Amino acid sequence: MLFAKVHGLGNDFVLVNLNEEKSLSVDLAGLAEKVCHRNFGVGADGLVLIGPGKEADLAMQIINSDGSVAEMCGNAIRCVAKYAYEHKLVDKTKMTVETGAGIMVPELIIENGKVIAVRVDMGMPGLEREQIPMTGPAGRVINEPLAAGDHVFHITTVSMGNPHCVIFVPDVAAVPLENWGRLVETHPVFPRKTNVEFVQVLNDKEVRMRVWERGAGPTMACGTGACATAVASVLNGHTGKNVKVHLYAGALDIEWAEDNHLYMTGPAEEVFTGDYLIK
Amino acid sequence: MLFAKVHGLGNDFVLVNLNEEKSLSVDLAGLAEKVCHRNFGVGADGLVLIGPGKEADLAMQIINSDGSVAEMCGNAIRCVAKYAYEHKLVDKTKMTVETGAGIMVPELIIENGKVIAVRVDMGMPGLEREQIPMTGPAGRVINEPLAAGDHVFHITTVSMGNPHCVIFVPDVAAVPLENWGRLVETHPVFPRKTNVEFVQVLNDKEVRMRVWERGAGPTMACGTGACATAVASVLNGHTGKNVKVHLYAGALDIEWAEDNHLYMTGPAEEVFTGDYLIK
Repeated sequence: MLFAKVHGLGNDFVLVNLNEEKSLSVDLAGLAEKVCHRNFGVGADGLVLIGPGKEADLAMQIINSDGSVAEMCGNAIRCVAKYAYEHKLVDKTKMTVETGAGIMVPELIIENGKVIAVRVDMGMPGLEREQIPMTGPAGRVINEPLAAGDHVFHITTVSMGNPHCVIFVPDVAAVPLENWGRLVETHPVFPRKTNVEFVQVLNDKEVRMRVWERGAGPTMACGTGACATAVASVLNGHTGKNVKVHLYAGALDIEWAEDNHLYMTGPAEEVFTGDYLIK
Repeated sequence: MLFAKVHGLGNDFVLVNLNEEKSLSVDLAGLAEKVCHRNFGVGADGLVLIGPGKEADLAMQIINSDGSVAEMCGNAIRCVAKYAYEHKLVDKTKMTVETGAGIMVPELIIENGKVIAVRVDMGMPGLEREQIPMTGPAGRVINEPLAAGDHVFHITTVSMGNPHCVIFVPDVAAVPLENWGRLVETHPVFPRKTNVEFVQVLNDKEVRMRVWERGAGPTMACGTGACATAVASVLNGHTGKNVKVHLYAGALDIEWAEDNHLYMTGPAEEVFTGDYLIK
């Protein structure tokens, strides 16, 4: 099975072009688990299949390393858009991609003929408690106290299709991520649990974020988390509507635009191509 | 850079054939660190370079994922021997390989034209305290008490070129590996620290082992550890001289032969081939 190994800020994928690979195993969940294993397979956070779209330039499908399906992933779609352009599957710099969350429109940022970043419309934020979802009275949650364990956090909650709980701290490096992340993720106020972002404000245009992903724990990069962080930074008066969110391996530029959509611009890298021996 | 990704019981390597790749970067330590990174590179425990030997059929060089050099590795050499035969670099089933620990002679076990395992001479064990090395009076250490933390372990120590401390337990699954492994590894009786093997005797031919590698922590497989475990099992009267050592991802067959050498027989797998983009 021919593939390319790609990553967006360390969130990494085995990308398979179905135009080249007609004979894929039908058990995609099993294939993803095998291929994504970091010692016995290629090693990745997920398997991404791309092919021609029915109503769009491309279609993409993401299967997580545990075999479950992901509707969309901001880091994966940047990689897909760059790959499709560089491997000449698409000759436009703004393309349409069918995903489990609808048709997305990634746009390539090109300098001197090279794709240096990809901009993706990440949709509109949900701010009401029932949109997160959270238990309790109607309304928004902006800098409200939440008691968890022997700690009181001040939280701002945002839905980007998935729940996010943003907590501003003086120093993200000092956060005991495993301990605090789990405490907040599983707090009963979040009936479907939540992703948790710890955020340090650097100035009115830049923040630093560490993320605890729901069900996955600490990860290097989370696109929806960066968007939720930008929204929370604006709502708390920490930044303007253009925010650079620094992550473990680089930064995402988030714009909360006039149309109420979040636009995320970030890098995508192809590391190697390979031929996986399906046994 | 063309490569093959291979593993022996989960101990995995990026294998580069220098016959195909003439233009390798001279900074091998830096290259190994990049290539071995599990998100930003190919992902592996080490980079293995092979080429024609001066006085042997092949030469191999192992650079660990942290850039340090490994003289020899039983899991890597099985992969190298299988690769060299299957990719027709060598047409013998018993070949000579130059390593940092001298010339090794791996032998392929072939059934129906397929390489099913590789047998490697792992050398002779050292049993005297100064050979391990350990502080204290001269002599061997077989089932002796060692107080560490609030625990007394019964240890048997073996050198296979590197130090091993073997501890028999009723149930390896119940061992707090992180805690006990570190305690024993760094005990002052071992001036150069030690690898630590926790071993459960299954019957007089089979044991189950979990290993804490010096400087690396828990790993899936350790060839010298399996050899040390076989020696300790014989010395303590638990098994005969042919011992199947079960590890996380399969088993190694160890023979303590009449010539006092340990012979290790185990599997090797090629998972995929690839072309890494050196930037």
